Amino acid sequence: MSRDDEPPPARRRFLAQGAAAAAAALAGGPARAEEAAPPAVPEWMKIPGADVGSQTYGRPSRFEDGVIRNVPQGLKQYISASSRTPLQDLDGILTPNGLFYERHHGGIPDIDPARHRLMIHGLVETPLILTMEDIRRFPSESHIYFLECSGNPGFEAIKGRTASDLVGLVSCAEWTGVRLATVLAEAGLKPDARWIVAEGADAAALTRSIPIAKCLDDALLVYSQNGERLRPQQGYPLRVLLPGYEGNMSVKWLRRLNVTAEPAYSREETSKYTDLMPDGTARQFTFVMEAKSIITRPSGTQRIAPGFREITGLAWSGRGRIRGVQISTDGGASWRDAVLQEPVLNRALTRFRLPWHWDGTPTTIASRAIDETGYVQPSFDALTAVRGLKSFYHNNAVVPWRIGPDGEVTNGYA
Amino acid sequence: MSRDDEPPPARRRFLAQGAAAAAAALAGGPARAEEAAPPAVPEWMKIPGADVGSQTYGRPSRFEDGVIRNVPQGLKQYISASSRTPLQDLDGILTPNGLFYERHHGGIPDIDPARHRLMIHGLVETPLILTMEDIRRFPSESHIYFLECSGNPGFEAIKGRTASDLVGLVSCAEWTGVRLATVLAEAGLKPDARWIVAEGADAAALTRSIPIAKCLDDALLVYSQNGERLRPQQGYPLRVLLPGYEGNMSVKWLRRLNVTAEPAYSREETSKYTDLMPDGTARQFTFVMEAKSIITRPSGTQRIAPGFREITGLAWSGRGRIRGVQISTDGGASWRDAVLQEPVLNRALTRFRLPWHWDGTPTTIASRAIDETGYVQPSFDALTAVRGLKSFYHNNAVVPWRIGPDGEVTNGYA
Repeated sequence: MSRDDEPPPARRRFLAQGAAAAAAALAGGPARAEEAAPPAVPEWMKIPGADVGSQTYGRPSRFEDGVIRNVPQGLKQYISASSRTPLQDLDGILTPNGLFYERHHGGIPDIDPARHRLMIHGLVETPLILTMEDIRRFPSESHIYFLECSGNPGFEAIKGRTASDLVGLVSCAEWTGVRLATVLAEAGLKPDARWIVAEGADAAALTRSIPIAKCLDDALLVYSQNGERLRPQQGYPLRVLLPGYEGNMSVKWLRRLNVTAEPAYSREETSKYTDLMPDGTARQFTFVMEAKSIITRPSGTQRIAPGFREITGLAWSGRGRIRGVQISTDGGASWRDAVLQEPVLNRALTRFRLPWHWDGTPTTIASRAIDETGYVQPSFDALTAVRGLKSFYHNNAVVPWRIGPDGEVTNGYA
Repeated sequence: MSRDDEPPPARRRFLAQGAAAAAAALAGGPARAEEAAPPAVPEWMKIPGADVGSQTYGRPSRFEDGVIRNVPQGLKQYISASSRTPLQDLDGILTPNGLFYERHHGGIPDIDPARHRLMIHGLVETPLILTMEDIRRFPSESHIYFLECSGNPGFEAIKGRTASDLVGLVSCAEWTGVRLATVLAEAGLKPDARWIVAEGADAAALTRSIPIAKCLDDALLVYSQNGERLRPQQGYPLRVLLPGYEGNMSVKWLRRLNVTAEPAYSREETSKYTDLMPDGTARQFTFVMEAKSIITRPSGTQRIAPGFREITGLAWSGRGRIRGVQISTDGGASWRDAVLQEPVLNRALTRFRLPWHWDGTPTTIASRAIDETGYVQPSFDALTAVRGLKSFYHNNAVVPWRIGPDGEVTNGYA
């Protein structure tokens, strides 16, 4: 790729062509658009608008009704299923709570927080049963972390059309709660404490075993997300949050922490959430979500015109901060460094951007993330050379987008 | 105040008393709570929960129905009015879009983004009329900034009961958009350009003059807030965002930028949004919101029990980063440094926290912010010694909370 594709730093005009086109469209375009364009006064300036407080809890504009969670169609049941965040419609790094991805194993319970209790027992000096008020009296912390399902996507799911279809089981929020270590100190760990078995108060009683080292490190018990209390879909009134670990370990609707010497070997860490390798053995306890990235604009089902535009997307790593993101606009022949939006936060989504001038020639674009450990997001071929094709979880391969002669963007795997 | 009030750093137990009390309450408490406490299985674990995707755009739990925008009662009209963020119910630094404060001057217009246009004219080389698609093609940025109404509170409003009543006209979000400077470069400024007059597409055609230096510095044209598109209440589909400046200058529903040599002297910068001083003169163009802070927990209408708890709240400054927050728990006789939640961001809300053991003695607590310029948030007496009592805007005085013998928290001014 020639360096001509990059706008020179001193270039001051991005849309000269586009703006002219817009003016032309206005001149001969639809009468309704013309009537709304200044200096004409649109009809919404001629009448009083809606009252202050007409929505005491606000909603998006009716013109954004299509920006919703991506729910799979035609399932036999929807209590053990997932819905995805519409990544291609979002900007920045935060996911609004209303669009945060879902994965439930027994549906969403309707929990009265005044009646909810957390029991801490097993290998502790003093078993505890805590109310939500008790938990909110502990010293608190807030952190922006991503959360991602380990099957994002499964290895068979690379046939989706949109960024959401492919990797929409990742979202990011500011979480507030108390360090799990602080609450464990209140109970007092016995010397042989090695694991903590967390149980949710949902109909699946979802159960996962967490190594004690993670519990004493950055694990949180969270009750708030993006400022307000957790939504029911995210574990209201209380969940574990294990930064960088596969999502289902951050047990929602948390009601029990059983401190043990051995893991529970629950359903969700034996028959599920293990990785079948080419030699027939299964990897177990593959907690950390490795570095990944996705271009969200332009991405599948969008259509672009030749000219200047920005390539932008998201990168993240369960190992820490993103160090860099590289972008190819020539099918992987060459790669250029994207700009990362500051602040780049530990185990948070990181927004990357690269200016690009598309000359109208069909091509393939892709991004690859590099995290602070130096790990580079692999291609699908490199990943499957090690992992084979029997796995379902922990597919963090590069996602290519194909751009056709008409500017239509499609899944580069399909 | 004795240093005994501070838990020593090595203290491992915070709730020993509280947890014991909870256990006692459980033993003899309401039967329904006991039935929900582990090891008993609550009824919400015995039936399947709600389906995945039952809310394609989610809502908070029904148990949080009281956490809503604080709308004044009994006004004659609600198109020029405000509603406040329930700060006392929130954690972290971000405000959910549904609870972001409102201030409208002609109601909330219902704008079709496909028909919305931004005109840039006046002292420019090339006047432009841009569509939303045009604006989204420019290079973008995301930043977390607070936004605050200049009348937060007015000088007469110190009789409110809650943190929201007093300073709920401040909120914080991650904003995404394009630098105003980038769009102005596309139009090309003429040498005598000194101000830009921004006009909203609401029924008030709200108009404010912005100094060209701010326009060429950190001013943004934003289309997204906390990941998703702006809500109608926040200017959908486009607003100006002037970090650190009084809120109404960040003109919503932006339709026009008129580049001029002089300010417009609009209603909102002459008869309103000026500060009448004791000598009868009026300060004009007081753009920057000075450093301020508020303790949100414990705060007005809450009730606390003796024992350990955390004092937490929010601080911010239109001049840049918060350098420190000091807290008094003895009516201002002594002050201690609170801990600031990292990362401390430029012109964003900053969460502060201080561990505290309340011994049950009536007292008054308060916080004061210090920003990166060294400016210290003043007491109400210090502020009014300079400003007098004829002003309405730019009251950034310390807010004291009185704690009664029964633990009830009330407005320290009342």
